[in-house]
Amino acid sequence: MTHPISRYPVPELKDLPEDVRERMLQVQEKAGFIPNVFLTLAHRPDEFRAFVAYHDALLLRESGLSKGEKEMIIVATSGANRCLYCVVAHGAILRVYEKSPLLADQIATNYLKADITPRQKAMLGFSLKVCNDSANIVEADFDALKAYGFSEEDIWDIGAITALFGLSNRMANLVSMRPNDEFYLLGRVPRDKR
Amino acid sequence: MTHPISRYPVPELKDLPEDVRERMLQVQEKAGFIPNVFLTLAHRPDEFRAFVAYHDALLLRESGLSKGEKEMIIVATSGANRCLYCVVAHGAILRVYEKSPLLADQIATNYLKADITPRQKAMLGFSLKVCNDSANIVEADFDALKAYGFSEEDIWDIGAITALFGLSNRMANLVSMRPNDEFYLLGRVPRDKR
Amino acid sequence: MTHPISRYPVPELKDLPEDVRERMLQVQEKAGFIPNVFLTLAHRPDEFRAFVAYHDALLLRESGLSKGEKEMIIVATSGANRCLYCVVAHGAILRVYEKSPLLADQIATNYLKADITPRQKAMLGFSLKVCNDSANIVEADFDALKAYGFSEEDIWDIGAITALFGLSNRMANLVSMRPNDEFYLLGRVPRDKR
Amino acid sequence: MTHPISRYPVPELKDLPEDVRERMLQVQEKAGFIPNVFLTLAHRPDEFRAFVAYHDALLLRESGLSKGEKEMIIVATSGANRCLYCVVAHGAILRVYEKSPLLADQIATNYLKADITPRQKAMLGFSLKVCNDSANIVEADFDALKAYGFSEEDIWDIGAITALFGLSNRMANLVSMRPNDEFYLLGRVPRDKR
Amino acid sequence: MTHPISRYPVPELKDLPEDVRERMLQVQEKAGFIPNVFLTLAHRPDEFRAFVAYHDALLLRESGLSKGEKEMIIVATSGANRCLYCVVAHGAILRVYEKSPLLADQIATNYLKADITPRQKAMLGFSLKVCNDSANIVEADFDALKAYGFSEEDIWDIGAITALFGLSNRMANLVSMRPNDEFYLLGRVPRDKR
Amino acid sequence: MTHPISRYPVPELKDLPEDVRERMLQVQEKAGFIPNVFLTLAHRPDEFRAFVAYHDALLLRESGLSKGEKEMIIVATSGANRCLYCVVAHGAILRVYEKSPLLADQIATNYLKADITPRQKAMLGFSLKVCNDSANIVEADFDALKAYGFSEEDIWDIGAITALFGLSNRMANLVSMRPNDEFYLLGRVPRDKR
Repeated sequence: MTHPISRYPVPELKDLPEDVRERMLQVQEKAGFIPNVFLTLAHRPDEFRAFVAYHDALLLRESGLSKGEKEMIIVATSGANRCLYCVVAHGAILRVYEKSPLLADQIATNYLKADITPRQKAMLGFSLKVCNDSANIVEADFDALKAYGFSEEDIWDIGAITALFGLSNRMANLVSMRPNDEFYLLGRVPRDKR
Repeated sequence: MTHPISRYPVPELKDLPEDVRERMLQVQEKAGFIPNVFLTLAHRPDEFRAFVAYHDALLLRESGLSKGEKEMIIVATSGANRCLYCVVAHGAILRVYEKSPLLADQIATNYLKADITPRQKAMLGFSLKVCNDSANIVEADFDALKAYGFSEEDIWDIGAITALFGLSNRMANLVSMRPNDEFYLLGRVPRDKR
Repeated sequence: MTHPISRYPVPELKDLPEDVRERMLQVQEKAGFIPNVFLTLAHRPDEFRAFVAYHDALLLRESGLSKGEKEMIIVATSGANRCLYCVVAHGAILRVYEKSPLLADQIATNYLKADITPRQKAMLGFSLKVCNDSANIVEADFDALKAYGFSEEDIWDIGAITALFGLSNRMANLVSMRPNDEFYLLGRVPRDKR
Repeated sequence: MTHPISRYPVPELKDLPEDVRERMLQVQEKAGFIPNVFLTLAHRPDEFRAFVAYHDALLLRESGLSKGEKEMIIVATSGANRCLYCVVAHGAILRVYEKSPLLADQIATNYLKADITPRQKAMLGFSLKVCNDSANIVEADFDALKAYGFSEEDIWDIGAITALFGLSNRMANLVSMRPNDEFYLLGRVPRDKR
Repeated sequence: MTHPISRYPVPELKDLPEDVRERMLQVQEKAGFIPNVFLTLAHRPDEFRAFVAYHDALLLRESGLSKGEKEMIIVATSGANRCLYCVVAHGAILRVYEKSPLLADQIATNYLKADITPRQKAMLGFSLKVCNDSANIVEADFDALKAYGFSEEDIWDIGAITALFGLSNRMANLVSMRPNDEFYLLGRVPRDKR
Repeated sequence: MTHPISRYPVPELKDLPEDVRERMLQVQEKAGFIPNVFLTLAHRPDEFRAFVAYHDALLLRESGLSKGEKEMIIVATSGANRCLYCVVAHGAILRVYEKSPLLADQIATNYLKADITPRQKAMLGFSLKVCNDSANIVEADFDALKAYGFSEEDIWDIGAITALFGLSNRMANLVSMRPNDEFYLLGRVPRDKR
């Protein structure tokens, strides 16, 4: 009953364009394995490149949000979109960044019960509105975030990360993208115990 | 930022009625810790007793559903109800019963992408209809399950487990019931590695 | 076109365990008939006992809510869950307790138009949030009730009654539980006129 | 805690235009009282006249639907719109037409559990789609009704009655229109017993 | 792939009752063509007359709302109901009344982004609540409008226009009413340029 | 009451990186004006580049979908997301590609009433499922499209275009992106008449 990693053909590394393969090898070097999002989206190299570029533009950018907070947004909205790949893979990254084995499951299920600050709850509340009901965003929503010290640029970050992962949630659901088994345990136990 | 295990008073073991304490000690013996659902619901012993009795009546009962399948229902519907306690605690039990470290996260997020059989997907589809839209259950829903070999009694089990955990999901959300930290890792790594 | 009282087998009184039959005879003594919820749930005596115990723990308990207010919660949330049995049966009990022939239909349809106090409307608004969206309950919801004098224990009552009848609404929808004809008229006319 | 019959001014009979008063007196003659929908909508005589004309055009028209079936549509969709006035008033009319004391509560709560024919359930399923999701009506919806013998003209009747009472449900909710107390009991007991 | 103007028979002018034909000729005189809503609803002259009477009672009435504002309500709620006929036809009328080629598309899609006043946004927010959730209208909704200077009578107008076009949206969706091609361009270009 | 084109700073052409400015001048050359999506997203050049790359990868790609069909997907899903910018701007492009002045308003409002083929309706039905409920996509959804001749790669196109514009819909709603006035009329009148 094990599903394949995608319903679409998955290219072999050797058949990929040089730049796409290069990127994968970099990630593999760092993570120890190639996340399936890379392998499955590389079925179409141009879309792969655009996705990676968008990802890097938002996630590597200096911001009023910490790297962990950006992952919180991804996990919360991927939970709302019921995207297995992103909940599991970004849940792992969130645990690693925040050095918290509990946070990902909390935020994927119900951020209101998570061990986070009121400021972070406000951030996730806004991201879920962008995710589920962006048409009804009003000035009061911006004001609520500013009361917690978020700048207009921070709010762009929250909205744009939500929007980008709304895209990848839909792609992952479309292709039935399977998370690598490695992600499930990552960040749950001290490195030396694994 | 760590939440308490309940917004309501949590009784100490020594202050509990004998039968309630006894039950907790039994579970502690077996699991190594007392699940917070026991401690938090014991704030009201009569309701505690009724809940435990209902739980046992359904989960210990002989059934066309395996013990693992019953936990699948709890995890899927608790995910839909966004109940942190039940997703985490019953997710752990599901991993242990099914000896699968992946299944709980899959089913809590999106059972359609889980490593389960078509029969089990049909079972979870029905349980989510009982969870979200029980008023619109029709004969065709029963027929779809019977085509997979479920009996009328099995369907009662599916519906009743869904209904009971809909109750506990609401209680857990109401009191902000916190899952024991132990549950998060349970069933994810071989016992000797923990 | 008359439906049976349940799609599942309905036991005969004589075939029931002593304690279960005893309970039914008590109710019959008092009400003049055996409510179908007893007969239909007794198909599984253990679940029957647990349900009745839970019911008694909540409804017979001393509380900041009156007996009529507890029934208001049941009727309002059963209306939201579109559960015919509970709307009709508990609607009858509500009419009797409140000595009001109008209240049940008002509350089952739209509590905002009912002849109740602002405090009772706040109570029902909260119970509908527990019923429909318990994951999003926040501190402000508790504060709104406390402004009307509800204690934390009262709020547990509101939530727990909602949760328990959410369970029985789902069971009643699952088995197509039929309300006894007697309930429809109960409390609508002075006793001597019936 | 008794609400007035409308949040808007309610004209006195003597101040109404002749034709409007005439209509009310006719109804009063027949029913024994003036339904509040007449008194409250007469706040604006032109709209009153249009509403009554629309009502008569649809409800007095020869049709493949019986008079009782037309009331079933009104009760089911008014339940979905949570309109107290129409549920109670048309529930009464439905009981009288169908000589059934149970049918109105059944259909207002959940038509799938009502003592009606499969043909009538199909009719109400369609009317609820017109009520809640008219944009997604497709040819298959028409086909399903035709399989039960409904003609295109009958389907217009179902849709138009749903649409007209969607209008009056919204007006009743807007003005908090109060059903006459008389309606609650009408059709529940044999005439000689009241 | 061009759809007919209605799935129901469309009467010829010559076959219509005198008063119905007269009304059509008046409109044709003024607009240069007969809007399809007239031709399609005239399939049933009595309902046609009632609809037109209701329409005139509300739209020709002196009000605290301008003629343009009334059309804004129709366009916003018809957008929510996804009614092609009313979005296109009343969008055209709105452009003409407001002498704005942009307003109709803005309001049909998302009134919060339209070039209108805060007062008009409040009006449309209320009309969408009447459209989508009239059962939950509360005093605070009235208060919010009164803060912008709307009277109780103005609020009746907002609600009643919403309710009437909720009726015609459902009829148009039912019969697949086709907007006249002429409406699409009306009010978008200066008259002498067409 | 005219809104600015974005709530965020809009860069001047001269201040933009060479490649970004170059792209804008190309579009301006072709369209006669610079679409505001370029100006507003260029506030962050890296995200701009990624968005444009994604856009080109999908929309310039050879496909089993025509250029007009790709725009139909954008218009239908942007309507569902209530994104003013995309409904108006891509509505214009759709009219131009399909040489149809009516199609955009039809599809933005309700594709089921549009002058398109059954195959195109199936395509839009699927795109709306990806837009609104991607977690529940199942094999039967793919089968339904294949029955109309869509290949797996075509289905990826439908899903990916939906996903990308779900991203831009959210960004446009977030920044209150204003469509250029020119778009509203584009493709509605023969070129020589404008």
